[in-house]
Amino acid sequence: ELVSATQRVRQGDLSARAPHWADDEIGALADAFNQMVADLETSQQAVAEKEAARSRLLAQLINAQEEERRRIARNLHDSVGQSLTSLMVGLKFLRQLNDRRAIADKSTELRHIADETLDEVRLLSRQLRPSVLDDLGLAAALERYAAEFTGLYPNLTVDLHCHLPQRLPPPVETSLYRILQEAMTNAARHSHAKTLSVLLTARNNHAQAIVEDDGIGFDPEKARRAENSVGLHSMAERAELLGGALKIESSAKGASVYVEIPL
Amino acid sequence: ELVSATQRVRQGDLSARAPHWADDEIGALADAFNQMVADLETSQQAVAEKEAARSRLLAQLINAQEEERRRIARNLHDSVGQSLTSLMVGLKFLRQLNDRRAIADKSTELRHIADETLDEVRLLSRQLRPSVLDDLGLAAALERYAAEFTGLYPNLTVDLHCHLPQRLPPPVETSLYRILQEAMTNAARHSHAKTLSVLLTARNNHAQAIVEDDGIGFDPEKARRAENSVGLHSMAERAELLGGALKIESSAKGASVYVEIPL
Repeated sequence: ELVSATQRVRQGDLSARAPHWADDEIGALADAFNQMVADLETSQQAVAEKEAARSRLLAQLINAQEEERRRIARNLHDSVGQSLTSLMVGLKFLRQLNDRRAIADKSTELRHIADETLDEVRLLSRQLRPSVLDDLGLAAALERYAAEFTGLYPNLTVDLHCHLPQRLPPPVETSLYRILQEAMTNAARHSHAKTLSVLLTARNNHAQAIVEDDGIGFDPEKARRAENSVGLHSMAERAELLGGALKIESSAKGASVYVEIPL
Repeated sequence: ELVSATQRVRQGDLSARAPHWADDEIGALADAFNQMVADLETSQQAVAEKEAARSRLLAQLINAQEEERRRIARNLHDSVGQSLTSLMVGLKFLRQLNDRRAIADKSTELRHIADETLDEVRLLSRQLRPSVLDDLGLAAALERYAAEFTGLYPNLTVDLHCHLPQRLPPPVETSLYRILQEAMTNAARHSHAKTLSVLLTARNNHAQAIVEDDGIGFDPEKARRAENSVGLHSMAERAELLGGALKIESSAKGASVYVEIPL
């Protein structure tokens, strides 16, 4: 019976169990065997769950990327494209004008359109990937982002402290920028917090970041399991892909996101 | 000894083996046990390898997305931003002109700039996500793409046949578009093919696509294992996420990519 149970396990049937015949050595063996198979079953379930979570994340990541592409493509095509078309029509019209005053007015109007379009293009560019991140580094990019963030969420005070003695490796800068962006946006959207404290340091060959809010808190496990939780998952994945880790603590007094990435 | 081996396996040590004491029942049991543990070890290794492959894909996908963002952000900031700045400067200059001829020339020049910028913005938008895909569907988007593709790779003849009686579900359209785009680009870049045949049909509740080239072929397994093979992996993942499958066949006479997605 024990032999047949091992054979069933060999064929991948982790529900196979050996009968407990007697309280002798073979009985003890059967017990040990059964416990072993049960443990294997549990660990295989855990692996399967992690695999499923990865699969979902992959799907969400691909969807989110497609959504981002669609959003930018529409914005470029509709809004920026429309402004450029207006400029062309305006210039054609201007060419036919005779009155100096009218020409001056028209060119001023067109400059306003060009100016607004430039603002829009720069904002779109910065939202995609701020050049300051590559040129001046993480601290400068976060200062800039915090300023824009305060404009977007005026009811939330952001308290940003970056203590970075030097530039971090580019992948770490990118990942921390994306993680902190996501954590800050999550807090702004869901926490009802008044203050958001962001702390970034580098010491003992590790970059550490904490995003702490005084909001209503949330259940990190539940949020992670939720559909479309691409944000939380990709924050953790980004840290883990660089050998780091992400931890979330939350209570009714607020939530904290801790990130650590080795340098 | 057998009991201690099962306990070691319980603790996760799949290298544990039971000694073969004698050719009796216990001996047969030890053999069966050892074989079972060896099988488990093999299957766990397979799971670990798949997990590692997913992890790599995730990392590559995140990197590719970051690269795409950087590319578009730079393009917007530098090229489109620059043109808009030129337009603003030009309009300011035009405002100060007195001569009608000079004003006409300047406005024509500025219209050229606006026109080229519009082309650039539309190209960028279309590369990101062609609106024709949402508005007119996969067949129309592929026709458009094939035309652009021929412009990019004039030495490669594209033979596109779409037999779609109606629009496919949006996720299937998006995935097939991305998969075919990737397969066509791969062929253009690496196959040295003269002809690329793309066939798309929908029947028996399945969408099927084949991209076939007459190039030098490649080793699909080797390509899949290669670093930075984000293209091949994401093609397969996109199909699998919709319950479909992707298969690659290759010989010295060319390569074929088969995709099937249930509708």
